[in-house]
Amino acid sequence: MSLPTLYDYAASANCFKVRLLLAQLGLEYERVAVDIFDGDTLTDEFGRLNPFRSTPVLLLADGRPLVESNAILWYLARGTAYLPDDPVSEAEVVRWLIYEQADVMPAIGGLRFRLVTGRFAADSLEAQARRRHAYEVLGALETHLATRQFLVSDRYTIADLSVFAYAHTAPEAGLDTSPYTRFHAWLARVAEQPGFLDDLEPYPPNASLQVGRSIYG
Amino acid sequence: MSLPTLYDYAASANCFKVRLLLAQLGLEYERVAVDIFDGDTLTDEFGRLNPFRSTPVLLLADGRPLVESNAILWYLARGTAYLPDDPVSEAEVVRWLIYEQADVMPAIGGLRFRLVTGRFAADSLEAQARRRHAYEVLGALETHLATRQFLVSDRYTIADLSVFAYAHTAPEAGLDTSPYTRFHAWLARVAEQPGFLDDLEPYPPNASLQVGRSIYG
Repeated sequence: MSLPTLYDYAASANCFKVRLLLAQLGLEYERVAVDIFDGDTLTDEFGRLNPFRSTPVLLLADGRPLVESNAILWYLARGTAYLPDDPVSEAEVVRWLIYEQADVMPAIGGLRFRLVTGRFAADSLEAQARRRHAYEVLGALETHLATRQFLVSDRYTIADLSVFAYAHTAPEAGLDTSPYTRFHAWLARVAEQPGFLDDLEPYPPNASLQVGRSIYG
Repeated sequence: MSLPTLYDYAASANCFKVRLLLAQLGLEYERVAVDIFDGDTLTDEFGRLNPFRSTPVLLLADGRPLVESNAILWYLARGTAYLPDDPVSEAEVVRWLIYEQADVMPAIGGLRFRLVTGRFAADSLEAQARRRHAYEVLGALETHLATRQFLVSDRYTIADLSVFAYAHTAPEAGLDTSPYTRFHAWLARVAEQPGFLDDLEPYPPNASLQVGRSIYG
């Protein structure tokens, strides 16, 4: 029987999410590296796999592709302890998976990516706007965690895994997370879960804007 | 037995989603109008209901509040024909609910709100950026609908309902939707569903920035 295939990019926290859950579930899979800065997502072949051209894509053993990191987490976690199945908790997981893509990722992950790869200057108006949004996100998480150990139903679920993926990169986005003590304790709780791994890689050189080189080099 | 209570804003398409599904499911509920431009979401009482201070909130009969429009749809649709329960379709619904909040709403709904209420000039850089994003969204929907009648599993689900809510306001955002013929046919299919209603209201005067009045009036 063939294995599912993960099309992924090592420096993407959206891809890291799926690798982490696959490890925690003990599932075997094939891995195909996709270099998003070398045009790998722009090929006709990749377009057939995912017309939206984003990573990760999980190609199921039966040939059906699943896209959107949190939807892949949902598929893999369904029926396991990582996704509670009472109706309210399930809806709350949906809520955090949406918040992660609509707020956590663009604010923290988007800021980190653009600073680290030279797309934003640290004091640009765009960086300032993302930074304000990022501190709103950290504040919201801190408030939510005031009375809870985990985001939903007081145990580790894919809501925690998903939000952790970009949230734990906040220092690389130049954010001062030291006042957010409950947030820090929560990051540590996530990192203590059985099967946890963090194989998120730094952005490789070709992810950076080569402004200096293209103008002067 | 007490009924669930929907805290909602008549001109919010996020709130309209929930009213539409409640109507299609034939469920009774209490409705509490929340005037988001008159400070109703900033009270301590509302903060206890939803610390994120967004609408809609569905207060369940047992006293638990559910937040995030698409999570409320999930809760209500679970176990009904509006949410398929095979694993792949379920994950695909999650995917579209995320896309709706991360792309459809900010691009189309965000543009409409800011133009209609005087927050953006039609030719501002910010409006241009949202307009590009909105046309990307319309193009992605058009492509996806090339081989499908509905977004997931070829029947009407909460994925369609959710994306419809802001997508059908595209003309009010000044977008030219005429080239997107499959998109138009899909809007019509959604509007033909049993129990469909569209009670989304225009923004009231107090939603508009009163720049002229505050400076000169």
